[in-house]
Amino acid sequence: MSLEAVRYRRGRLQILNQLLLPERSEYEEIGGVRAGWRAIRDMKVRGAPAIAIVGCLSLAVELHRRKEGDKEELATFALESLDYLVTSRPTAVNMARAARELSDFVTGEVKQPDSTAESFKENLISRIEGMLEKDIRDNKSIGNHGAKHILSRAKTDKVIILTHCNTGSFATAGYGTALGVIRSLWSMGRLEHVYCTETRPYNQGARLTAYELVHEKIPATLIADSTVSVAMKEKGISAVVVGADRIVANGDTANKIGTYQLAIAAHHHGIPFYVAAPSTSCDFTLESGEQIAIEERPAEELTDINGLRIAAPGINVWNPAFDITPHSLITAGIITELGVHDPQELGKVLIDKTS
Amino acid sequence: MSLEAVRYRRGRLQILNQLLLPERSEYEEIGGVRAGWRAIRDMKVRGAPAIAIVGCLSLAVELHRRKEGDKEELATFALESLDYLVTSRPTAVNMARAARELSDFVTGEVKQPDSTAESFKENLISRIEGMLEKDIRDNKSIGNHGAKHILSRAKTDKVIILTHCNTGSFATAGYGTALGVIRSLWSMGRLEHVYCTETRPYNQGARLTAYELVHEKIPATLIADSTVSVAMKEKGISAVVVGADRIVANGDTANKIGTYQLAIAAHHHGIPFYVAAPSTSCDFTLESGEQIAIEERPAEELTDINGLRIAAPGINVWNPAFDITPHSLITAGIITELGVHDPQELGKVLIDKTS
Repeated sequence: MSLEAVRYRRGRLQILNQLLLPERSEYEEIGGVRAGWRAIRDMKVRGAPAIAIVGCLSLAVELHRRKEGDKEELATFALESLDYLVTSRPTAVNMARAARELSDFVTGEVKQPDSTAESFKENLISRIEGMLEKDIRDNKSIGNHGAKHILSRAKTDKVIILTHCNTGSFATAGYGTALGVIRSLWSMGRLEHVYCTETRPYNQGARLTAYELVHEKIPATLIADSTVSVAMKEKGISAVVVGADRIVANGDTANKIGTYQLAIAAHHHGIPFYVAAPSTSCDFTLESGEQIAIEERPAEELTDINGLRIAAPGINVWNPAFDITPHSLITAGIITELGVHDPQELGKVLIDKTS
Repeated sequence: MSLEAVRYRRGRLQILNQLLLPERSEYEEIGGVRAGWRAIRDMKVRGAPAIAIVGCLSLAVELHRRKEGDKEELATFALESLDYLVTSRPTAVNMARAARELSDFVTGEVKQPDSTAESFKENLISRIEGMLEKDIRDNKSIGNHGAKHILSRAKTDKVIILTHCNTGSFATAGYGTALGVIRSLWSMGRLEHVYCTETRPYNQGARLTAYELVHEKIPATLIADSTVSVAMKEKGISAVVVGADRIVANGDTANKIGTYQLAIAAHHHGIPFYVAAPSTSCDFTLESGEQIAIEERPAEELTDINGLRIAAPGINVWNPAFDITPHSLITAGIITELGVHDPQELGKVLIDKTS
């Protein structure tokens, strides 16, 4: 059975509360937009693609249940809900992008002279459901493109991959981005081993990636974030593959804190460094990484574990959730559903291929 | 009141059980060699200099209490105890070095025609007590040399220092090595801020260094190990100062896991990188870092916190406690009680100055 972060059928949304993993796997009902916003903010669901999926599906569920209102009222509700959902977490672009696309759709749809409240609802819900399916399809393409590219440059028949944070079934609608590449390599029989980082302070690597890898019986080893460099020196790592929360026009990439450090270490050891993300993680309205707003999370994420204090009382904490990896350190390329791209060429390629 | 990892008066040794910090500060009686070995192995006391001090003092205490035996029997007991204490943890050299020195002393002393069981005991205990005092004296010299060197190269009046793990009062007989440098800068009024890393998997930074810094009201911020590189990029770090568990002939240095990664990141950002350690941390019997045995610790240190499982069940773990920083990345020098040395010159300098 494959792992599901999100269970959806029309009118009903459940998410796996990832905060309880690995101890318990418990699904939680998301009845509407407020519950969706809260689940994202509390990190019960995380990962840039999954945030967008859950946010939009929470709107679909609330729309489906809503029995009154004409199409203008429904449209206002949808637009306000989308604006609100974007505020749940600031760094990942996928929710903002989905909100923009859906808002455009809503604005267009409501103007159709022959549309009714019913047809408006039906069309918007179908549109959102389409995003869920597209995310999985795109992830499989990412996995395939990434795996082929890594193998074409590998010096060995089977490869050893290092990854950071969680970019798998739990972070997406399913399959995964960086972990999708790992899944593809595994299904091709060309994966020797995976090293996954713990990923402090929220331990997504230890809790979620390790969980997915054990679940799929992929040979894997968990290491502390501090052990990355010595692993690169001693363990024959073929490539590093990570996800992205936002990729801007020059190829600079925001991703989980520690990614920048990983990229520096990979560069030092001459190991190819990849970012894997759907093109919906791109935000070409920003020129360079310095313009990306970085979310700072509460100190308690670092100082407490499950309510247990682990750091000395009274110490100040700086807890940025993300950092920026400059395009120059993404040495092997950015993998999207369209292929593997030079980070600085990505903007041009995506505009060409999607126009 | 200054923090004490070790409380000693003749015939009695107590150590602060560092595993209980920051929740409780509880001293534990060390009645003899077996209890000393166990406390070191269980990491109730850690830090290369402190390990040697506690190991040797546990012998002093047991010798003091021992009422029977002639000097030959006492010598045999001392030699066997020293061999045994060295096996408690393999990477730090200080215990092994102290054991060698004391063994030589024992062998010499027992041959003295006029020595008795009583004088043998008295001399060996005094010798061990001298090591305790010398460690504190040496740490203050390290602090002074390091602070002056950092200030001589700093571009600002006050400096910002980043450090890793715990190298303070808890890791030594008192004052500290890398944290001693920080203490000296603070007492000179030339320290602006300290960033200390959490130091997974045992959290010595969050538990111990943060505790010492808060205790002494030194302005400081705790960061995740993964946040080091972005801190270097954005926070105006003047220098990185870390401790050492073993420094070999070519200047390669074994220290807490993550030190190598810190050195790579410092090099990438052009930030001076220092190792601070007493000359007793040097082991010139080894030519290069590759010859240093690296202790691998149990998986549970990474997967559990205070008995609470935080990682997915069934995942493999690689948990080396130390890594090797090559001398080429120790860009600013190795600070000992004798001064600040080019890593590759250290061997020559120490032999010249101490001969």
